[in-house]
Amino acid sequence: MQERVAVFPGSFDPFTVGHESIVLRSLSIFSHVVIAVGYNSSKKSLFPLETRIRMIEKIFEAYPNVTVSSYQGLTVDFCKGINAGYLLRGLRTASDFEFERAIAQVNRMMDENLETVFLLTSPELTPVNSTIVRDILIHGGDANMFIPKSINIADYMNELNRS
Amino acid sequence: MQERVAVFPGSFDPFTVGHESIVLRSLSIFSHVVIAVGYNSSKKSLFPLETRIRMIEKIFEAYPNVTVSSYQGLTVDFCKGINAGYLLRGLRTASDFEFERAIAQVNRMMDENLETVFLLTSPELTPVNSTIVRDILIHGGDANMFIPKSINIADYMNELNRS
Amino acid sequence: MQERVAVFPGSFDPFTVGHESIVLRSLSIFSHVVIAVGYNSSKKSLFPLETRIRMIEKIFEAYPNVTVSSYQGLTVDFCKGINAGYLLRGLRTASDFEFERAIAQVNRMMDENLETVFLLTSPELTPVNSTIVRDILIHGGDANMFIPKSINIADYMNELNRS
Amino acid sequence: MQERVAVFPGSFDPFTVGHESIVLRSLSIFSHVVIAVGYNSSKKSLFPLETRIRMIEKIFEAYPNVTVSSYQGLTVDFCKGINAGYLLRGLRTASDFEFERAIAQVNRMMDENLETVFLLTSPELTPVNSTIVRDILIHGGDANMFIPKSINIADYMNELNRS
Amino acid sequence: MQERVAVFPGSFDPFTVGHESIVLRSLSIFSHVVIAVGYNSSKKSLFPLETRIRMIEKIFEAYPNVTVSSYQGLTVDFCKGINAGYLLRGLRTASDFEFERAIAQVNRMMDENLETVFLLTSPELTPVNSTIVRDILIHGGDANMFIPKSINIADYMNELNRS
Amino acid sequence: MQERVAVFPGSFDPFTVGHESIVLRSLSIFSHVVIAVGYNSSKKSLFPLETRIRMIEKIFEAYPNVTVSSYQGLTVDFCKGINAGYLLRGLRTASDFEFERAIAQVNRMMDENLETVFLLTSPELTPVNSTIVRDILIHGGDANMFIPKSINIADYMNELNRS
Repeated sequence: MQERVAVFPGSFDPFTVGHESIVLRSLSIFSHVVIAVGYNSSKKSLFPLETRIRMIEKIFEAYPNVTVSSYQGLTVDFCKGINAGYLLRGLRTASDFEFERAIAQVNRMMDENLETVFLLTSPELTPVNSTIVRDILIHGGDANMFIPKSINIADYMNELNRS
Repeated sequence: MQERVAVFPGSFDPFTVGHESIVLRSLSIFSHVVIAVGYNSSKKSLFPLETRIRMIEKIFEAYPNVTVSSYQGLTVDFCKGINAGYLLRGLRTASDFEFERAIAQVNRMMDENLETVFLLTSPELTPVNSTIVRDILIHGGDANMFIPKSINIADYMNELNRS
Repeated sequence: MQERVAVFPGSFDPFTVGHESIVLRSLSIFSHVVIAVGYNSSKKSLFPLETRIRMIEKIFEAYPNVTVSSYQGLTVDFCKGINAGYLLRGLRTASDFEFERAIAQVNRMMDENLETVFLLTSPELTPVNSTIVRDILIHGGDANMFIPKSINIADYMNELNRS
Repeated sequence: MQERVAVFPGSFDPFTVGHESIVLRSLSIFSHVVIAVGYNSSKKSLFPLETRIRMIEKIFEAYPNVTVSSYQGLTVDFCKGINAGYLLRGLRTASDFEFERAIAQVNRMMDENLETVFLLTSPELTPVNSTIVRDILIHGGDANMFIPKSINIADYMNELNRS
Repeated sequence: MQERVAVFPGSFDPFTVGHESIVLRSLSIFSHVVIAVGYNSSKKSLFPLETRIRMIEKIFEAYPNVTVSSYQGLTVDFCKGINAGYLLRGLRTASDFEFERAIAQVNRMMDENLETVFLLTSPELTPVNSTIVRDILIHGGDANMFIPKSINIADYMNELNRS
Repeated sequence: MQERVAVFPGSFDPFTVGHESIVLRSLSIFSHVVIAVGYNSSKKSLFPLETRIRMIEKIFEAYPNVTVSSYQGLTVDFCKGINAGYLLRGLRTASDFEFERAIAQVNRMMDENLETVFLLTSPELTPVNSTIVRDILIHGGDANMFIPKSINIADYMNELNRS
C-alpha cells in the first residue's frame, strides 16, 4: 500500500485553532502528517523554536500519525529528505491564495513530484492568524479562543517572561 | 484499508487540459475519482451532456480508477449517494478562489463530512478556462492546445454542425 | 435631533441570515432602516416581489424602526424620494467589495450627500449568499440554517409550488 | 519607421469617459489606434452597433490616427486581418485585472506576436463602467458626467425611443 | 438620547487627505469621533507621536466633536476604556479590505459590542496612503496635495531636520 | 520622429527571467528602455548595487537601446532628469496590480505627463519573483531556471561569499 506523507510547514508563532483544524481534517487524506516548524535565524519570534515544538507536540499527543519536526533551508529539500510527496496548506483569504500559489508553483518547478494540497479554514476561523494572535498576547489580551484547547497559553507566556 | 473517493464536479463544456491536469495529479491522493458532469436544463451548453461524457471517457479510458457520471441537483446529494467523502477542485485565480470558497464552505455546512480538496493548475494553464475555449471554438479558432491530446475537438465540432 | 435614515437595498431573493445580521447590527447607528426590495421586470426571481416583502416584514415585525418597501429605477432616486441620507451594505468578500465600491462611488457622484455605510458579515455567515441559498431551495435541499429563524421557508416554497 | 497599430476592443455600450481617457493617453505610444466595436448577435445591447460606431466617430473626429471599426469573431483574427501588433486595454480594478489577464494570455498563446498593453484609468474614473452607465440611462438618470463631452447622450436616447 | 462615540485608529504617519475625508464624512453618523494615534515603541516612524497629534489637532481645531488621543496596546481595550461602541475605518482597495476584515472580525470576537463601520475613500483619493506620502517627503518631493490644507507639511519637515 | 523613452524601475535583487521577458517584449513599443536600479541605503540587499548593474548589463549587452542606470530618491524625479515619458512595469497577480496602481496613480498626480505602461508576465513566469529567487539562492538551491540564460548565477554567488 502506498504511503501518503504530507508536510505542513509554517512558523507557527503560535500554532492556532486554524492550524489545528487543517491538520485534523487532513488526517483522512494522508497517512502521516509532519508539522514542520521553519526556523529562520534572522527573524524574531515571540516563542522560541523549542517552545513552539513543545506546544504542537502537546496538541497532537493523541495522534500517532502526526509528528513535529523543525527545519532550516528550503521546504522542498526538507520534503525530499523525509521522502514526503505532499505539502499541506490552509487557505483563508484571496491574498493568502496569491502568496501560496507563487510558493506552491515554484516548489513544483523545483521538484515536479511535490504536490501542494490546499484545505480551506472553517468560516468562523478565517480571521484568525498568528500575527494577530501574537499581537493580542504581547498586549496582555485574552487569546484563548484562538489557541487549541489542549494548550494553556498563559503558561507559555509566563515561561517567556521568566526567561 | 480506507477508500478515498473524490468527486470532481463541473459542467466541462468542454473539458480542458486544465481539468485533465487536476484529475491526473489527484490520482496519487485518491483511490477513485468520479468526474461528475453537472446537468442544468435551464443553461445552454455548446456540447450536449452525452457528448461531454463521451469525450471525458475517451480522455481517461486508460485509467480504471477514473469514472464519468452525470448528475442533476445538489452536489452534496450526489456525493452522499455514491458515498464519496471528498470534492476535488482546481484553483486558478484569486477570484476563482472566492467563488470556490463560498461553495465549499456551504457544502461543508450542509454535510460536515464532505471535505473539499484544492489543487492548483500549473502556471502555464492558468489562463485556460472553458468559457474562453468555447468562445474560440464557436468562432472557428484553433483550440487544440487547450484540449487534452487524446481528443480531436474538430470531430466533435463536426458532430454538432451535422445535428 | 437629527434623523439618520438608511436604505438597505437588494433583491433579497431570498433574505438570508446574513442580511438579517447586517440590519440588526445597524440599528444602533441609524434611527430608521428601510429595507428596499429592488424590482426588475426583466430579471427572473424565485420568489415574487410580494412574497419577498411579506417574508421580510415578518422577520422584522418586532422592530418598529425597520420598514420594508419596494422600488424600481435608480437607488439614488429612491433615497432622495424618502429623504434618506445613507445606504447600508454588508461586505463579505474582496470581490463583493470591488463591486460595491463602484456602485457606492457612482451613487455619491450622482448625489454627494448620499453616504454608503458598510458593515461586515460575521465570519460564519461569509459563505452565505442568496444565489447559493436559491440553488439549494430549487433542488429541494435543506436551507433552514441560512434563513432567519422567524421564517419557515418550506411554507413559502409550498406557496410557490401551488401557484 | 515602424508602424505601431493598436486595437482597442470592446462593446462600448456606451463609450464612457473612461474609454476616452485610455485612447487619448495611448496616442503618444501608438501611431494608430483602431477602436473595434465587438458585435455579438446573441447579446442584447442598449445602443445598436451602428449608433455606437457613430458616437465614437464623433468623439474622435478631430483625431486622424483614431479610427472606428466593428468586428465579429475572435479578436486575434481581427488584429491579424488589419495587421495590428497590439491590443490596448484599460485596467480599473483587481477583478478587471484577473479577467483581462486570462484573455490577454490566451490571445498571446494563439498569436505570440500579439502584445496586450495596459494603461490605468484615472482614479476619479475608476468606478465608471458601461454596465452602470447603461443602468442609469435606462432609468432616466443623468449620465452626462460619465460620457465624453462631445456627445449629448440625450440625443441618442431620444433616437432609441423613437425607433 | 444615545451617544454614538467612534474611534478612528491608525498610526497616521502622516495624516492624509484620505483620513481627513473619512473623519469629516463620519461626523453625520457619529456624535463624537476620537482619532486614536497608535503608539508602537518597536516601529520607527517619520514623525514623532507628539508631532502627529499636534498636526491632527490643528486639522480639526474647528470641530468640537473630534478629539485626538494616543494609545498603546489593544484597540479593543482603548475603546472599552473610553466607552466607545464603534471603530471607524476607511476602505481603499480590495487588499485593504481583506486586512481590515481580519482585524474587525477578531475585534468583534474579543468584544461583541464593538462594531466596525467602514466608509469608502473618494475615488480620486484611492491611491493616497501614508507609506507613499512618507516616501515622497523623505525624498524631498512635493506632497502638499496629499496633506490636509490646514497643514503646511514643510514646517513639520523643518522641525524634524532641526532636531 | 518622436522618441519614446521608458524607465523600468526596480530593485532587481536579482533580475529574473520575468523581468527579462518584460523588457524584451517592450522593445517594439519604446525606442529606448532604461533599466533603473533603485538604491535604498536602509534596505539590505543580497547582491550589492554594483553587482546587480553588472548582471543586467551583461544580460542586455546585445541590445543597444537598453541601458542600465541606478537612482536614489523619487522615480518621478529620475524620469524627469533623463526626459523619459514612460514607466514600464510588469504585472503578475491581482495583489501586484493593486500595489502598482497606487504607485502609478500617485506618480501621475505628481507629473501628469508620466504614463505607466503595463505588460503581463507570461503565464509560466507568473510565480517567479525576486523574493522567492533570493530565498532559493540563500539556501543553496538551484535557481538557474529563474535567471536569464546569459547569466551564471553561481559565479555571482561565489563573489558574494568571497567578499
